[in-house]
Amino acid sequence: MRQRSQSPGSAYFYYPRLVCVIGARDDEKATANFAPVTWATPLSCEPPLFGACVSPSTRTHHLVLKTGEFTLSFLGMAEASLVDTLGRLSGSQVDKVKALELVLEPGEVATTPSLAAAYARAECILVDRHQCGDQTLLVGELQRVRVAAEAYDVQGVLRLDRISPLLYLGGNRYVTTDPTSESRPESRGDR
Amino acid sequence: MRQRSQSPGSAYFYYPRLVCVIGARDDEKATANFAPVTWATPLSCEPPLFGACVSPSTRTHHLVLKTGEFTLSFLGMAEASLVDTLGRLSGSQVDKVKALELVLEPGEVATTPSLAAAYARAECILVDRHQCGDQTLLVGELQRVRVAAEAYDVQGVLRLDRISPLLYLGGNRYVTTDPTSESRPESRGDR
Repeated sequence: MRQRSQSPGSAYFYYPRLVCVIGARDDEKATANFAPVTWATPLSCEPPLFGACVSPSTRTHHLVLKTGEFTLSFLGMAEASLVDTLGRLSGSQVDKVKALELVLEPGEVATTPSLAAAYARAECILVDRHQCGDQTLLVGELQRVRVAAEAYDVQGVLRLDRISPLLYLGGNRYVTTDPTSESRPESRGDR
Repeated sequence: MRQRSQSPGSAYFYYPRLVCVIGARDDEKATANFAPVTWATPLSCEPPLFGACVSPSTRTHHLVLKTGEFTLSFLGMAEASLVDTLGRLSGSQVDKVKALELVLEPGEVATTPSLAAAYARAECILVDRHQCGDQTLLVGELQRVRVAAEAYDVQGVLRLDRISPLLYLGGNRYVTTDPTSESRPESRGDR
């Protein structure tokens, strides 16, 4: 394979990545703010922790630190345009809920809403944060997960024949999975 | 959308996720160890940081802390079986390089090799670590990124018509992207 070597930062080599939308309660403006994040990952099984990178300059960062909680909303490919818009607007300047007529779901445990359009939603309590270069890794403990009843199979695996998860590819482009490519490999050495 | 509420941990709601294989030098055994990780994320642009969750009980954890460096290898869908096997074998018990006849690429900056089969590889120096529940988030500063010359377009975006990135879906299942689904949405409110 012909290769090229390059400095870090010049390629989106770590994409595609699943998009999740972080929700934060904005008491001051009597609304909530929603921002798409792809630099995010589960961090622990026990306790169940999930981390999301947020720039300290954002309204989301300010709100999560203030309220001590956040929600995660996972959306399908059909919501690419909405997600893109959420990423372009600033919660400091615009009430995104109002401007985009977002339909919200109230929290069951937390008091921060999530997006009704999501096929999976989680409520998190902020339990820790780590400064990582120019971002803050917000560490949330998962309190409750709500999923569309038809979205997952009995093993808890996403049904790609029913849900087309939204993945970010870099450069303002989005993509989803190919359900026909799904495979359960036979490990080398399996008999 | 009919919903069900559930305790965290009972659904793979945060999948699919891009697979990356962490490489660590094993001086003691004069080999290297490779383990697939999906709980991983970029953490910062400047400096360029990448974080990967590793259980403290693993050989990878031991080796990365000892050597202070690790590599990342991103593989295509065709390597699902290899990745699955790398995840099943323990580096404490087996020399995976030997057992699986892995072809390695030496590092350019670090001295830890990566997998030659990868379409993208990165070399990281361990700069920090955070205990997150039952995992350690290893924080690496990206030193060098090497990519297959044909894998990315001029904007640095992965060419899905050429590369089928390997995504983990949970439950021992893998999937890749659908290149025909790629879109660059027009933001709501764009004129």
